[in-house]
Amino acid sequence: MAIGRGQQAFPRTEYVRRLTAVKSELARRDIDALVVSDQNNITYLTGYTAPSGYVPQGLVVSAYEEEPTFILRRCDAPAAIHQCFMERDKIIPYPEALIANPEKDGHDAVIDYLEDIGLTNRGIGIEVSNLSAQTAEKSKGRLPDAKIVDCTNAVTWLRLVKSDLEIAVMREAAAISDAAILRAAEVIRPGVREADASAEIVGTLIRGANGKPGTNYYPMCLCSSPRTGTCHIPWSEDVFRMGSQVNLELGGVRHGYCAGLMRTYSIGAPSDRLRRVHEIQVAGLEAVLEMIRPGVTCSDVANAFHRTIEKQGLRSETRCGYAHGIGWIEPTASLKTGDMTELKPNMTFHLMLGNWIDEDFGYAISETFRVTESGVEVLTTAPRKIFEI
Amino acid sequence: MAIGRGQQAFPRTEYVRRLTAVKSELARRDIDALVVSDQNNITYLTGYTAPSGYVPQGLVVSAYEEEPTFILRRCDAPAAIHQCFMERDKIIPYPEALIANPEKDGHDAVIDYLEDIGLTNRGIGIEVSNLSAQTAEKSKGRLPDAKIVDCTNAVTWLRLVKSDLEIAVMREAAAISDAAILRAAEVIRPGVREADASAEIVGTLIRGANGKPGTNYYPMCLCSSPRTGTCHIPWSEDVFRMGSQVNLELGGVRHGYCAGLMRTYSIGAPSDRLRRVHEIQVAGLEAVLEMIRPGVTCSDVANAFHRTIEKQGLRSETRCGYAHGIGWIEPTASLKTGDMTELKPNMTFHLMLGNWIDEDFGYAISETFRVTESGVEVLTTAPRKIFEI
Repeated sequence: MAIGRGQQAFPRTEYVRRLTAVKSELARRDIDALVVSDQNNITYLTGYTAPSGYVPQGLVVSAYEEEPTFILRRCDAPAAIHQCFMERDKIIPYPEALIANPEKDGHDAVIDYLEDIGLTNRGIGIEVSNLSAQTAEKSKGRLPDAKIVDCTNAVTWLRLVKSDLEIAVMREAAAISDAAILRAAEVIRPGVREADASAEIVGTLIRGANGKPGTNYYPMCLCSSPRTGTCHIPWSEDVFRMGSQVNLELGGVRHGYCAGLMRTYSIGAPSDRLRRVHEIQVAGLEAVLEMIRPGVTCSDVANAFHRTIEKQGLRSETRCGYAHGIGWIEPTASLKTGDMTELKPNMTFHLMLGNWIDEDFGYAISETFRVTESGVEVLTTAPRKIFEI
Repeated sequence: MAIGRGQQAFPRTEYVRRLTAVKSELARRDIDALVVSDQNNITYLTGYTAPSGYVPQGLVVSAYEEEPTFILRRCDAPAAIHQCFMERDKIIPYPEALIANPEKDGHDAVIDYLEDIGLTNRGIGIEVSNLSAQTAEKSKGRLPDAKIVDCTNAVTWLRLVKSDLEIAVMREAAAISDAAILRAAEVIRPGVREADASAEIVGTLIRGANGKPGTNYYPMCLCSSPRTGTCHIPWSEDVFRMGSQVNLELGGVRHGYCAGLMRTYSIGAPSDRLRRVHEIQVAGLEAVLEMIRPGVTCSDVANAFHRTIEKQGLRSETRCGYAHGIGWIEPTASLKTGDMTELKPNMTFHLMLGNWIDEDFGYAISETFRVTESGVEVLTTAPRKIFEI
């Protein structure tokens, strides 16, 4: 029996719009087809969110066809038929014999498909940075007559400016992030195991908010004393203690899109040092939000933050954030000094102002925002305070 | 202030044992140092589990030093000092300027370190499959006098046979998997949203079992009617309904080690077809377990399964499992026809007998086992039944 198409996050017209932009990019680069390997780019172009990218798979966007073709492991094909916007004949399963096979793998199936559609002597884009050295070599070896062009991040850059439909989904994700940050303030208690509190916080990320469940879980970080100088520990086996500080980073997820959010908690009154750092960091955050508008560069944004906190005697080494959407970090625009990307309406960023000041002391605050026609809309709305427990 | 070393999952002697095996491998391949990029191999050799591998980092194992050296992003260095077994001078932070920098990244910092220790004209192993094509090229370009040897999966193969200490940790993970499978039977109910049940199941994976919390969350799959023919969907936005079937795949995690487990649930009486498939699959599973002992090959194991179910009129296309431990799949031995890897005591596998029979019908059962001196120990212990709700 056939599996039907499931509920779609976006209408067909939205995918056609995205693909039209990709095809313009193909024309600009004078190539005939693009092989998309990056899982987040595949989500963007098809709606597919099942995590099957641990084995090779590829989405082929041809300049000559409206819909792309998705070549993936046979056991994952039903999920693709269910989730993708394309017609089912655009899902091409490759056999299980290509799994754990050192001679021939899923990338061979993608190249076989390029042969089938007669494009092996044409211009073919590949995402070199998403391919292992061996796979990139194989592509060249099996496509000796093709003009192979590195299109790493070509689709990713198109993702930077969101449509209003995407923004609506990111607002849903942001509401989930807000709910989880507030839930954390209810469950972080002295004597409670970090794991038990984390189970509740993650539970909120999955249950969602406003009747919209989280559709996936992106790793959360919970860094508590004496680990507040670290930034990527999920949680520890400790219990929370009186006097402990907790730095939390999390993000709700809707249809692959997330909205990162960081806040700091203090069990008992915050130390003077923590309070002072918080005040300076919030001042820096507000200075950034005041200046965001189309035409300002990412570098300007970062400089505004650094200038504000440095005036008050604080420094931060890490960048101030990154383009944000499907799969957390979009590896394109970076809110750092020297990144001359100009902000445009509906670009979205995680303004990530975590500041890991000493090996044993750090602080976390962030917001997810979009650039509007005239300024900024902050999608996350949790109070900008130290949550005192 | 300095961050201290946290509680360690394994004693120093265990890491020294693992590193001694790596150094024997270096000697066998006539190379002087190995650059480990794979995050799971880094966990294996150091105890580090924080997920910072989304930016380049590298662990250098030198034939001439007892401890390896870990080069990673500065803001992640405190977590490495906290989690790794090595002395703190073996943690080398690289500056934030190498993040989102197209000219120079963390791999350059790793090569800088090889220069510092004077090994750039010696034999250097790299894990080519874990490097992008660009990074592999860079390694060759910046190390023109080195003899570069592809050591993809060299460490991974060493991970295949576990120590008794590792087995003990996998037993803890398996107990968590069992608890989550039983919790699912309590929360899967008609009218309940899949997300709400998933929040409870994931909560159990994080809270853990026997006083041992899960130390991380590895993605769970919950594929319910009409999606039982899919295998990698986290959960959907639907509610469960009377007559629905639910296939669940999950695994508790302790210190990076997991123990995969799959079971099938039926809301209301299972169909005759489901019942029949279950009986055949369990017969196949038992046939496999009866034959497992040192000296048998992975191919023998897979053939025993296929032979048993085919006698009863069922087929399965997917492989029967894979080496299992840190990070879910270990890309080494595969329980499939033709894999001539011989089983040895303390090898561990996820015996994954999910069978996606039709686009709209599949069935899930699995166990995590270790090979013993004379047979098999199944680490997961949930009842091998269809859980009737």
